[in-house]
This record gives sequence, structure tokens and C-alpha cells, in this order.
Amino acid sequence: MTQPPIPPAFILVRPQMGENIGAAARAMLNFGLDRMRIVDPRDGWPNPKANAMASGAGRVLDAAGIFPDVPRAVADCDYVFATTARPRELVKPVVTPERALQMTREMGAAGKRVGILFGPERAGLENDDVALANAIITVPVNPDFPSLNLGQCALLVAYEWGRQQSDVAPEVMALARTDFASREEVEKLGDHFEERLEAAGFFFPPTKAAGMRLNLRNMWARLNLTRAEVQTFHGMLRQIAYKLRQGGE
Amino acid sequence: MTQPPIPPAFILVRPQMGENIGAAARAMLNFGLDRMRIVDPRDGWPNPKANAMASGAGRVLDAAGIFPDVPRAVADCDYVFATTARPRELVKPVVTPERALQMTREMGAAGKRVGILFGPERAGLENDDVALANAIITVPVNPDFPSLNLGQCALLVAYEWGRQQSDVAPEVMALARTDFASREEVEKLGDHFEERLEAAGFFFPPTKAAGMRLNLRNMWARLNLTRAEVQTFHGMLRQIAYKLRQGGE
Repeated sequence: MTQPPIPPAFILVRPQMGENIGAAARAMLNFGLDRMRIVDPRDGWPNPKANAMASGAGRVLDAAGIFPDVPRAVADCDYVFATTARPRELVKPVVTPERALQMTREMGAAGKRVGILFGPERAGLENDDVALANAIITVPVNPDFPSLNLGQCALLVAYEWGRQQSDVAPEVMALARTDFASREEVEKLGDHFEERLEAAGFFFPPTKAAGMRLNLRNMWARLNLTRAEVQTFHGMLRQIAYKLRQGGE
Repeated sequence: MTQPPIPPAFILVRPQMGENIGAAARAMLNFGLDRMRIVDPRDGWPNPKANAMASGAGRVLDAAGIFPDVPRAVADCDYVFATTARPRELVKPVVTPERALQMTREMGAAGKRVGILFGPERAGLENDDVALANAIITVPVNPDFPSLNLGQCALLVAYEWGRQQSDVAPEVMALARTDFASREEVEKLGDHFEERLEAAGFFFPPTKAAGMRLNLRNMWARLNLTRAEVQTFHGMLRQIAYKLRQGGE
């Protein structure tokens, strides 16, 4: 019933170095984004250095729209963010990447197109560019050391998209792949130990035996053993018992 | 009453290129982290290329601890994460950066030291390194294009630390700096417009006048005007009225 949200377009404004255009393309594709626009790239287009840096993400560059100015690049956008570190005189909401990508997701799910402006490496966006935006994205960096370049800024914004889009549980991603022992296998391991411990006179005094058994069962359950580990425990126990029967120490 | 959490140490394991060590230092300092450890760097230590890339973050490198192997680098850590993209045979929780830094923050607040291992550029961490870790961090990237390098991985992990540590409201960071018009100023602007519109015969037919007035009042409130914008509106209205009185169109 719910549509997947329209992903944002990353709009690189007057980028200078091809390497950074390529790095932005890779950053985007890492998190499943592929709609790039480029406004008036300094070294023209196509740019071999951009393609070299993009490597596997070259298709993002091949599909990129090239525009002569920012107004034309954002013409079909319903909402525009400008990424900038510097405070501006302009009255505009300033949001974190986290909030911006929440908004992007909500608007995208409602069929709205969001564009995100990234400024040129050295100077950043100009006030005229920022004036076209509905809101500003500022990454809350260490005020004593704010040094994000174009590729890094694009990476963090793309990461936020990916993080919020992801249906991967943040808790434990891969334990599901693990071959855990079944409840019954854990039970049998408990039986095996109990049997040996019983024979060894471990459950003493008798008044405490029931509690000791319960504690052991609890422990086996809590350990969350894999099937292989259960087999290892069985093997260790068997080997110790065998050694004892041989009269070893 | 609550202590600030102990920040994590970033442990670069057998890093190859000095540039990436420098980039990691910058990524860390961007988000207020400065505890770096380096295990057996390929090109020895100190590394001039690392310092050149780190630029302003050189002090992170100057203070970095250099270790011959991973066990000694993590010896004083209470909990160790290993960052790796590849699935491992090892049974270990795999968490997102988001979850890992939540855990880091919680453990750090309880006085525990957390170390985060980053592998060498080409090969990544070896199984022996990962075996020393309590849990694995995997960035949930696009499975069709997973290409994060050392500096980028360090940036995303540092960003998560900064994001979760930040007391910046994600919603609207800078509107507080804006000089919004008071309720009374907005009210007076509404009065001014109403007066002019009344004179111009705008509120017609009379049966609809009340609703029209209400809609206008609502609009002025919603626009959230600054003090300067309110003055601009007053000025525009005055000028139009003046022109009309002059017999202009």
C-alpha cells in the first residue's frame, strides 16, 4: 500500500575536482542512490577523472543531468535543501542530516521530489544558491575542527538516507545466519552433563540438588550455543569420561 | 551526576597508506574524537603523508599509540568492535554503526573503555583480529555496490558518535537566532492590510467578509514572518497606497 519514497537527487553545484564528483557518485551508490545532477562543472563534462574515481559507480555519472545554473537544476524539485557549514543571514530552517533525510523520506513517500545542493569544494554554496533552497542542512561537526569535503558531506547525507531506509535491525544483523542449536539439542546437552555430574557426585548436598540443576539448565539456555558448540561440549564431556574410565587423572 | 562517556579509541590495524591514516584522524576530530591507536603501520611511523593529509588534525596523530600487534593494542579495552564488511564464520553479534555507538556510549558512561578496530585498506581485518572482538560492526551498504574505504568507514563511525552525542536539536537548529516578529507586530500588520483592503472593497460579498478576514489572519500567523519582513510588508502596502493616491495605475 505504501509506495517506496522517491529518493533525493544530489545536485553538485559548480564542482571543481573530477575526483570529488566521482567520490560523490560512489558515496551515493553505496547507499542505493543514483540520481545525480551537476551544475556548471569547472572542468566541463564528461570528466575522465570523475569516471576514474567513480569506478563501479560510473553509471551514476553516465546518467547525471548537466545544468547551466541552479534554478534550472532544481526546477522540477518540490523541496530543496542546501548543505552548508557557514551560518547565513537568510531566514531558513537549519536541520541536521538526520532530520533532513526524515523529511526527504516523508516527502518522497508523498510523491514529492527533493533535491539536495552540495557546494563547490573551496567556497561552498553562494547566498544566491542558498536562497533557492527551502532549508539548510548543516552537519553538526566539532566547532573547533569542521573539515568536511564535498565527498565526505555527500557520504554522510547518503548514509543517513541508507540508515533510515534500511530494514536491517540495528540490534543484531547477522545472528540469524548462525546455526543455533535447537531447544531440544540444548536440553539433551543438559541431560548429558547432568548424568555425568550425577555419577560424579556433583549434586551435593541433596537438599541443594534441585537448585543446582535449575541453575545449570538456566546457564545452558542463556549461552545461546550453536549446533557446533553443542557437539563440542558433548565431545569434551565424552572424552573426559573416557579418560577417567582409563584411569587417567 | 552523569559523567560524560569515555569516547572510543579508533584502532587502525596494519594501515597501508599514510593518506588514509590522516583522513581517519580528520574524520575523528570532526566529531570530537582524538584517541587513535595504530597497529604495525606498513610504512613505519611517523608517516609524513599521514601528517600532510591530517592537516589540522595532526595532534590526533601525534598522540596516537603505536602497537606491534592487535592483542597489545586492545589490552586495556573492556569491549572491542571489529569493523568488517565480509560475513564471518565466527559467531558474533553483528551490529550497525548506530547500535554500536549506542553501546559505546552506554559502556563509556559506565566507565568502560571501548576500542574499534579498522582493517587495512585492501584486505580488511583478518579472522585472528576479528576473533579478539566482542562484536562486529557492519555498515549496511548497498549489497550491489559496497565500497567504503578506511577513511570513509572511520568517518561514518565517528559521525554516529557525534550524532548521538550531539545536544543539537535535529529539528531546527538555527531558527532561534532569527528575529521573528512578535505576535503584536503580526497583528498590526494584519490590521494594516485589513484597513487597506476594506477601503478597496476587497471584503465582498458582506456575508463572506468574516471568513475572508479569518483566513487572512491565519495566513499571517502561519507565515512566521521576521520583524524585517513585517516592515517590508508595511512598506509595500504604504507605497502602493501612495501610488494610488497619486493617481498612478
